[in-house]
Amino acid sequence: MRPRHTENELVTRIKKSFPSAKNTSLRLALGDDAALLKSRPGHEEVLTCDWFLEGSHFLRDKHPADAVGWKCLARAVSDIAAMGGAPRCFLLSIALPAELTGRWFEGFLGGLRRASRKLQCELAGGDTTRHERVLINITVIGEVKRGRAVLRSGARPDDLLFVSGTLGEADLGLQLLRKGEGKASKSREALRKHLYPQPRIELGQLLSERGLATSMIDISDGLSTDLARICEASGVGAVVAEDALPWPRGVAEEEGARLALHGGDDYELLFTVRPSRIQIRRLKMALKMIPGPPVTLIGGISKEKILLLSKGKSAVQEILAGGWDPFRE
Amino acid sequence: MRPRHTENELVTRIKKSFPSAKNTSLRLALGDDAALLKSRPGHEEVLTCDWFLEGSHFLRDKHPADAVGWKCLARAVSDIAAMGGAPRCFLLSIALPAELTGRWFEGFLGGLRRASRKLQCELAGGDTTRHERVLINITVIGEVKRGRAVLRSGARPDDLLFVSGTLGEADLGLQLLRKGEGKASKSREALRKHLYPQPRIELGQLLSERGLATSMIDISDGLSTDLARICEASGVGAVVAEDALPWPRGVAEEEGARLALHGGDDYELLFTVRPSRIQIRRLKMALKMIPGPPVTLIGGISKEKILLLSKGKSAVQEILAGGWDPFRE
Repeated sequence: MRPRHTENELVTRIKKSFPSAKNTSLRLALGDDAALLKSRPGHEEVLTCDWFLEGSHFLRDKHPADAVGWKCLARAVSDIAAMGGAPRCFLLSIALPAELTGRWFEGFLGGLRRASRKLQCELAGGDTTRHERVLINITVIGEVKRGRAVLRSGARPDDLLFVSGTLGEADLGLQLLRKGEGKASKSREALRKHLYPQPRIELGQLLSERGLATSMIDISDGLSTDLARICEASGVGAVVAEDALPWPRGVAEEEGARLALHGGDDYELLFTVRPSRIQIRRLKMALKMIPGPPVTLIGGISKEKILLLSKGKSAVQEILAGGWDPFRE
Repeated sequence: MRPRHTENELVTRIKKSFPSAKNTSLRLALGDDAALLKSRPGHEEVLTCDWFLEGSHFLRDKHPADAVGWKCLARAVSDIAAMGGAPRCFLLSIALPAELTGRWFEGFLGGLRRASRKLQCELAGGDTTRHERVLINITVIGEVKRGRAVLRSGARPDDLLFVSGTLGEADLGLQLLRKGEGKASKSREALRKHLYPQPRIELGQLLSERGLATSMIDISDGLSTDLARICEASGVGAVVAEDALPWPRGVAEEEGARLALHGGDDYELLFTVRPSRIQIRRLKMALKMIPGPPVTLIGGISKEKILLLSKGKSAVQEILAGGWDPFRE
């Protein structure tokens, strides 16, 4: 017989799945009206929230529940990384159909718990209700040293434009998943990136603490869309060299450039650095400090408010935002 | 011609609707990856989040967009009040169909802005996407003096049980709205309570700062459900006097008691106080300090872990949770 799951029972299961850490400055809110968090002196709180909706952000029949749990937290934490902050705790709002409160929910909690441990981001509280489709909203509270947060608005003409990791891999992974080629070993890396993205917390913190990045954003909707956001906030333009784009290995050039420009969900960091020899040297030194991903110079910031793609030696074309926008027809 | 609303355009409209306050310790996140908040020394952060979903929590054809905007924030702030805290800022996650991005969304933002001003809770950031039905999730960050938060778990045997305001009025308002009797003047108060609830921030703060309440919760799902939560968290039971329940005026006794016991959405505060003469005198003095609402003694806490309703002089029956649970069949 299917057990009856009331809201209180679900909350109890979530609490069991996330035993409170000791020596924490957090008091769990699952089971009270709200959570309590002690802030650390000399720091500012960094706040962000993120939708993760069945049908829009994941497909129930394609994405394992475990990956849904991992990814909903990882992508929200990526926004904290993009400010140069470190995550502290999160709130989980989940609405789900009664028939998913059993095995699916256990799988989901498993993935979420792994992400919570890996990203050192504790569960603080949340809200649980019923809906015919799975709805998830994650709020992450992080911290950054006072005055050290890196905004989107700090890019200046002549700044150099860098990106971490590989672009377009997650989009490739999604394509493979849709085609049902999820198990082919060739596609494993792309699939992993799509299902279990790794927010670049260490890189973001390094760039903020050393004052290296003048502006930063995480690439969630695609380079063409997210670079436009940096440029708009900073009142500048940019030129990107197509040849330099770090697209996934084993993909033809044209498709590679398209994936790198417009593919979403990579959660890599896009940032600008002042174009001085000292800053470049400091950046190289800093990157040796962390295990994390390669960082690639892909272009520079320009005064003219337009995004350009340079192809080879002379050809240039405008980059139009082709990343993900839920309201685009 | 219907304008094309992209996600960026919606964010711009939200930003315009919430001009940044001056002298604030908050930096707006709409337009950046995350918001930045400076915490105040000697305080703890209070964190809560709340679903507000079309079909579950409101009906598109019955509830004005303005009331949806007001209520989604007011009910989340009520969780902060129930800890004895004061709200500081909120994050708005909203998903909506393209056809509601015009007039409906303007009405929604109007109600939200009024609530934001009235409750002194600034917009800090959020996430906007598209969905076939309106989905809202609100995170509120509040603050409470360190060590002063009132939890659900502090009720002790013999404590007195108090409740603010009138119970069951919001449920009555919902019934009137469903019957289409929304405009009758008799029902105005009940409707107002249902559409534009007032979280009891001042009362909650007073009870926490003066160390008066030993436990507290806001009544969102009905007294029978929320009192059970206090009792479970505190490991105690309670006896409620039916005659003492503050049900809405003009309602027959049996219906009044039912509304007061099981009606949801009132956002009144339910709290316990040590049964000493000094504490009762201090409570009475304190209540004179703030304008609103009346506070009623409705019963007491017992050692035995059961919820009882006393009817008249001798009759007693068990109270079974009959408040709102989205997973109850």
